Amino acid sequence: MAIKVDFIASGTVTSPQGFHAGATYAGIKERADDVLDLGILFSEAPCVAAALFTTNRIKAAPLVLCQQRLATGRAWALVANSGCANAFTGGEGLADAAEMADLAAKNIGVSPENVLVASTGVIGQPLPMELIRAGIGQIALTRDGGHELARAIMTTDTLAKEAAVVVTAGEGGFIIGGVAKGSGMIHPELATLLCFLTTDAAVDIDLLKLALRRAADVSFNMVSIDGDTSPNDMVLVMANGRAGNKVISADSQEANAFQQGLDQVCIYLAKAVAGDGEGASKLIEVTVSGAISVAEARLAARTVVSSPLVKAAVHGSDPNWGRIIAAVGRSGAEVVESKLDLYLGDICLVRGGKSLPFSKPSAVELLSRGEVPIGLQLNLGTAEATAWGCDLSEEYVTINSQYTT
Amino acid sequence: MAIKVDFIASGTVTSPQGFHAGATYAGIKERADDVLDLGILFSEAPCVAAALFTTNRIKAAPLVLCQQRLATGRAWALVANSGCANAFTGGEGLADAAEMADLAAKNIGVSPENVLVASTGVIGQPLPMELIRAGIGQIALTRDGGHELARAIMTTDTLAKEAAVVVTAGEGGFIIGGVAKGSGMIHPELATLLCFLTTDAAVDIDLLKLALRRAADVSFNMVSIDGDTSPNDMVLVMANGRAGNKVISADSQEANAFQQGLDQVCIYLAKAVAGDGEGASKLIEVTVSGAISVAEARLAARTVVSSPLVKAAVHGSDPNWGRIIAAVGRSGAEVVESKLDLYLGDICLVRGGKSLPFSKPSAVELLSRGEVPIGLQLNLGTAEATAWGCDLSEEYVTINSQYTT
Repeated sequence: MAIKVDFIASGTVTSPQGFHAGATYAGIKERADDVLDLGILFSEAPCVAAALFTTNRIKAAPLVLCQQRLATGRAWALVANSGCANAFTGGEGLADAAEMADLAAKNIGVSPENVLVASTGVIGQPLPMELIRAGIGQIALTRDGGHELARAIMTTDTLAKEAAVVVTAGEGGFIIGGVAKGSGMIHPELATLLCFLTTDAAVDIDLLKLALRRAADVSFNMVSIDGDTSPNDMVLVMANGRAGNKVISADSQEANAFQQGLDQVCIYLAKAVAGDGEGASKLIEVTVSGAISVAEARLAARTVVSSPLVKAAVHGSDPNWGRIIAAVGRSGAEVVESKLDLYLGDICLVRGGKSLPFSKPSAVELLSRGEVPIGLQLNLGTAEATAWGCDLSEEYVTINSQYTT
Repeated sequence: MAIKVDFIASGTVTSPQGFHAGATYAGIKERADDVLDLGILFSEAPCVAAALFTTNRIKAAPLVLCQQRLATGRAWALVANSGCANAFTGGEGLADAAEMADLAAKNIGVSPENVLVASTGVIGQPLPMELIRAGIGQIALTRDGGHELARAIMTTDTLAKEAAVVVTAGEGGFIIGGVAKGSGMIHPELATLLCFLTTDAAVDIDLLKLALRRAADVSFNMVSIDGDTSPNDMVLVMANGRAGNKVISADSQEANAFQQGLDQVCIYLAKAVAGDGEGASKLIEVTVSGAISVAEARLAARTVVSSPLVKAAVHGSDPNWGRIIAAVGRSGAEVVESKLDLYLGDICLVRGGKSLPFSKPSAVELLSRGEVPIGLQLNLGTAEATAWGCDLSEEYVTINSQYTT
């Protein structure tokens, strides 16, 4: 079957048919121009839904609620806020998350158990429920409201992250869209941020779960900003079937097309998260090939892209490539010094474990670009993986040393 | 047996009897005031010697040489340089390390196979052997030369790290001394820096190995600066028996005294390494108690002290304690939200999983000190561990974005 995946201009989480969203400024975040901090995503029809959650032992109240409600594999809507994580807030936090879902349910006319909740922001502070009660009625849902939802979940993000693709599979087709927020506490441990994905394809719950895990493995699980993970990390996908296609299951001819589309949206959002890391000025892309296994390739790529010393060197456009070697050496992946090749873009710095003379100005020029590609060929096997991250800047420190003060 | 451990004023690696050291400026590092970059440590009598090495798969040439030579459990001298790591330098690097030992052996009149080698500095560059050949003859060994050796192994360290203790055990006694360098690429994976320890006690090789591992476990293995490990990490201990005591073995009454003394020297040096981390302005001490096992207490303490977000918050004296909770939650240690207590010095911020009101000015004042104590009581068991690290500053980034340029 011929498969085509095309990005939609200005695509977002409401690009798939039947999804509506909207947001408001409830006053949870401090006011700045154009700030939104409370949003709703709603599907005209009930959805098959699956999610990935943080591996942190401290789980925010909205995650606990979502885990319970997603046991059915179904959901109809989502309410999300930024500015307060509702994490480490005990029983009151759980009650607040449930009330937030109730308020949204009333607003959109569905029953509360079909409404999911997500929060992001400062940990350990109670949700300002008065503001949420007052704000939720202000939210107007529209078919174009995905753009507002994308902004409503931003914290230190400097750009809204949203995308959608049209997937054509033989005669049929469907749309997949999504929004995400990232910026800090970003590290590959299952899910690593807030991300809401939607599709108008009809998808079987088992395939939806499998496809989400696979897509996360090549996207969000390959992104690292600072090695921290948050109690609020969640990646959610909702499928409402409005495209009118036959339900796609693991055996369907369209399963592969659905996977490709979902992968593309997730990789796009993951790279947007990496490139917009706190204080980031550059996206770093590390590709490790020739590894003994995919697991080792992933480990090696993620370790290099996470290394504070590699990140700082890239920030200063300093071709201090020994740090890349040191990072891959400690990654846990099998590495043989005498077999290693190292590339910066198409400049070969090391071949067979021997450093080659290279033009320093060319290397500095390459490191000064907005996207810095690092390639490691281990020459031990055939497995390959790519990870994304960002440079470490003085600004990262400045942002994070003054977050609550 | 009564055991006393007392620090010696201006103690160093040559404080134990029979040890001599010296250093010179060979020109490997760029010149600044008072720079030394090549040093020798020498014992009048042959030593029983043991070492811990990096777990990085890329091992620097001097480490490979030391691993071979320490198979005998004996050594007589050490030559060390800073400014070039002689790491990722292949067969030439091994030949250079061996020649460096030969040159030192000739200088001090012992046979080359009794001489160990250590290097630290930029990875992937060949040792400038011409400079080393010319420099090594300039080194004059003295009983007070430990202070020079301490300076000769510094890279971005701002302070020399050295200490010595007198251990009194019953009627007898002996001295243990050491020097270390740290600053960057510091993370708990076996050894994590260069550290040379000496003692004039006579110690059995099996006890020496065991005591070194135990001492590292409560000191160097509990220090994190940036999560990176280097190909050059090595902790070495040499015992020459000049104190004239009976050989201490695992069964001796003095074994415990030796362990206490070694622990004290290692903890002192480890804290000095942590407090002098690249760009650091504060030492952070994280104590986790009430853990299910010592392994989990260690994991939790190290994860909190390594968290970039915790480190940045401490830098800004921002009492954003949710980040401490998030870090312990992702550590892998068993944590139950409703049982957790969190202290900043003696200020209790969280008790039984509930945040308490606290004086923000007091918390900010405490975070502004040179040593910031963080306490986590998990209330699940009886195990405890302490880890040390430093704040993350804009200066760390500046230093590391311009290291080779």
